[in-house]
Amino acid sequence: MSQFTHFDESGQARMVDVGEKPVTDRKAIATGRIRMQPETLQLIVGGEVKKGDVLGVARLSAIMAAKRTSELIPLCHPLRLTSVTIDFTPETDSSEIVILAKVTASDRTGVEMEALVAVSTAALTIYDMCKSYDRGMIIDDVRLLEKSGGKSGLYQDPNFSTT
Amino acid sequence: MSQFTHFDESGQARMVDVGEKPVTDRKAIATGRIRMQPETLQLIVGGEVKKGDVLGVARLSAIMAAKRTSELIPLCHPLRLTSVTIDFTPETDSSEIVILAKVTASDRTGVEMEALVAVSTAALTIYDMCKSYDRGMIIDDVRLLEKSGGKSGLYQDPNFSTT
Amino acid sequence: MSQFTHFDESGQARMVDVGEKPVTDRKAIATGRIRMQPETLQLIVGGEVKKGDVLGVARLSAIMAAKRTSELIPLCHPLRLTSVTIDFTPETDSSEIVILAKVTASDRTGVEMEALVAVSTAALTIYDMCKSYDRGMIIDDVRLLEKSGGKSGLYQDPNFSTT
Amino acid sequence: MSQFTHFDESGQARMVDVGEKPVTDRKAIATGRIRMQPETLQLIVGGEVKKGDVLGVARLSAIMAAKRTSELIPLCHPLRLTSVTIDFTPETDSSEIVILAKVTASDRTGVEMEALVAVSTAALTIYDMCKSYDRGMIIDDVRLLEKSGGKSGLYQDPNFSTT
Amino acid sequence: MSQFTHFDESGQARMVDVGEKPVTDRKAIATGRIRMQPETLQLIVGGEVKKGDVLGVARLSAIMAAKRTSELIPLCHPLRLTSVTIDFTPETDSSEIVILAKVTASDRTGVEMEALVAVSTAALTIYDMCKSYDRGMIIDDVRLLEKSGGKSGLYQDPNFSTT
Amino acid sequence: MSQFTHFDESGQARMVDVGEKPVTDRKAIATGRIRMQPETLQLIVGGEVKKGDVLGVARLSAIMAAKRTSELIPLCHPLRLTSVTIDFTPETDSSEIVILAKVTASDRTGVEMEALVAVSTAALTIYDMCKSYDRGMIIDDVRLLEKSGGKSGLYQDPNFSTT
Repeated sequence: MSQFTHFDESGQARMVDVGEKPVTDRKAIATGRIRMQPETLQLIVGGEVKKGDVLGVARLSAIMAAKRTSELIPLCHPLRLTSVTIDFTPETDSSEIVILAKVTASDRTGVEMEALVAVSTAALTIYDMCKSYDRGMIIDDVRLLEKSGGKSGLYQDPNFSTT
Repeated sequence: MSQFTHFDESGQARMVDVGEKPVTDRKAIATGRIRMQPETLQLIVGGEVKKGDVLGVARLSAIMAAKRTSELIPLCHPLRLTSVTIDFTPETDSSEIVILAKVTASDRTGVEMEALVAVSTAALTIYDMCKSYDRGMIIDDVRLLEKSGGKSGLYQDPNFSTT
Repeated sequence: MSQFTHFDESGQARMVDVGEKPVTDRKAIATGRIRMQPETLQLIVGGEVKKGDVLGVARLSAIMAAKRTSELIPLCHPLRLTSVTIDFTPETDSSEIVILAKVTASDRTGVEMEALVAVSTAALTIYDMCKSYDRGMIIDDVRLLEKSGGKSGLYQDPNFSTT
Repeated sequence: MSQFTHFDESGQARMVDVGEKPVTDRKAIATGRIRMQPETLQLIVGGEVKKGDVLGVARLSAIMAAKRTSELIPLCHPLRLTSVTIDFTPETDSSEIVILAKVTASDRTGVEMEALVAVSTAALTIYDMCKSYDRGMIIDDVRLLEKSGGKSGLYQDPNFSTT
Repeated sequence: MSQFTHFDESGQARMVDVGEKPVTDRKAIATGRIRMQPETLQLIVGGEVKKGDVLGVARLSAIMAAKRTSELIPLCHPLRLTSVTIDFTPETDSSEIVILAKVTASDRTGVEMEALVAVSTAALTIYDMCKSYDRGMIIDDVRLLEKSGGKSGLYQDPNFSTT
Repeated sequence: MSQFTHFDESGQARMVDVGEKPVTDRKAIATGRIRMQPETLQLIVGGEVKKGDVLGVARLSAIMAAKRTSELIPLCHPLRLTSVTIDFTPETDSSEIVILAKVTASDRTGVEMEALVAVSTAALTIYDMCKSYDRGMIIDDVRLLEKSGGKSGLYQDPNFSTT
């Protein structure tokens, strides 16, 4: 049974050595969703410019947080991201917004944490922007969809295909 | 229908003025959970010290992130937190860890975002610590349980009681 | 002739002691402008949503930077801001955008640096967003318009009245 | 007419993908000036060590801010700077200080924002250091002078030559 | 025997609750020293302006680091400092520089960590500035000299008196 | 006699140009110690889990601080660290804990400051965690043990051998 690589053999936390790993093109896609009252969703996507651009603010916060992942997650390596994109898909049937983050880098280690931090921050910012109207919003189903570029090859969530 | 307070009447984002609000004791409790393989949960809570203290690292990351909420969430006010506590409850039946964050401050605005940021960061750090073993972990059900201290009085999640 | 207060009597930099000052309501207004090609201004304000919201991004960056003023300006005190608002006025005649930042706090020292940092960051972000189209944009006339709340009373730029 | 590259085709902000760009030696030079009362300028450059080293503090703040550009400007890529230098030229005729920042990096994207952030922060710090004596200082003419190292080749401000 | 207050009764780290503590004037003084080759000390204090102001850079870094103490030390509360001063005393006999940091705040908890962080950062910056000339410098004797303003009253290092 | 490289020929601080240096594997080892009351040391290492894991918290703070070295030390280049490990050795005879930090990177400049920042932050965090019990702890003997990977070749503290 493999151990957690962030600990050494005596169980002490460390920033694991990636110095021997080659620099390769890394990519990760993560997703999550935030559920809310139908009226809240309507206010967000209703298109009246006067309401303010909730998703624009959330998108920006997600991009900025992805850049600071190594400050937030204690054992993450600092990386130089080459791109971050955030997409939102409102789903009126389930009254939620689906968040999708794609992150790339050219580095020695993967960018899945950056993608997951982006998704979480987008969801938290949506909560913050709308909480005066709907305190009961719930962030759900934050997970990694796809990861590629490292020695372990392509990972894909069994329930997901980007194609 | 009330508007989102983070936007002005023309829909522009702003840091809303809390200067007129009195300084009061604020408290917020948030929760969330991270689902994983039963073997992963066993590794985390199995108690062999040699495995490393996943939850200790996650707890610390959550406390540190709570302090930086106003850097992550664009329109949050900077606050002086007076306490942050993070609790983890492993649930072997559902193979998940339940995260509970309590935050207090003596300030002009609430600390629910700080509590939610703490929960999310704890979950993300657990993911990071265990991802070499289990990439399919899912963060779920991140939400506010309770909030008190402001003009709007006590808020409690309808499905929740701390007593 | 008064000395610069950020230095002591032997010329050494210090964070000047404000511990004896009372906590009062502070307010500062700063302004600045960014000049550009008429076509660039047209692209920014043209209103086609598809073009992207340059000013929305700049506004957010300004609010976030204001919160971090004490990290950027070496001898600034950390403050708890109670509000930040950013307004943009396009002026087609002079082909520029006028930036106005208002910041308030309830603290022992003024918020003029926070307002000036907000204006500068808004202008820099506008530059960044449009630089692929117009590298020659110029940031001009960044200055304090008004300041109130401290022992020195109301300061107003001689050429300016908010009323 | 070219679009702003920081937005995608539907107008959403993104950190644009530079993963395909080669790593090359990048350089940018930016300038700006801060106007003040002649007495203020005299105090700054008068050479009495006892007055304190306003420009030394400003220089350091500029170098430190350049390193944090990607935190301040939402869609900037994190870069590894290889050098930052800041020069100040007092101009007694016009009663102002001219700021010049040169930044280099070996990376996939340009460093013009880093140079402009350095200039702006130097000017803001000069303002902060002297504001107790002269609140009316004005930051002017912040602009890019030269940029080289990318696919678009050498850019030079039409009114400027470094040689 | 008293426990460490940063852990709860089950040994979990927490940001301890200071919400019940009154806001009082806090003060802390810390010290430390950095030993070096006599030639290095001579270069630092020799007074030739052309050599560069090592201590000026170190002083600024110390003030800025003090403001960020709660980001560096995991369980420290965020505080609003009201003053920071840093003094250096070269001692040619022992070939070292003595660092003294005084920090004040008006808050619910003490500022000894801020003073100790300032001293350590000043010493580290002196090392960085001079390491191309003298890699063998040693930071020694970093400790708290005095602390006042809290419930526990005045603490003074037994070997120290500020009067 | 060589000058300090962080200053230019006129004594102005700069981030020195490393653009011409090749990217090589860098490594640095630093050490330090923190002295305390025997009872304090006993509480830290006594092994009762209920006491809380002082060294685990200190280790994490050291790793996180190493990543932020270029924010703390004004003229340090931003680097991409490839590993950070922190070891603690309690020495009951002298009633102190010895701290050892090893840092590696693949970059154009050395990582000795990152290692020294890690050691200092670990010591400061130990102080913070135990200060309610023992205010008189002293941080001592913080120094570079070994550095390799640059043009200047291997440096080793004369009193130290890692083999």
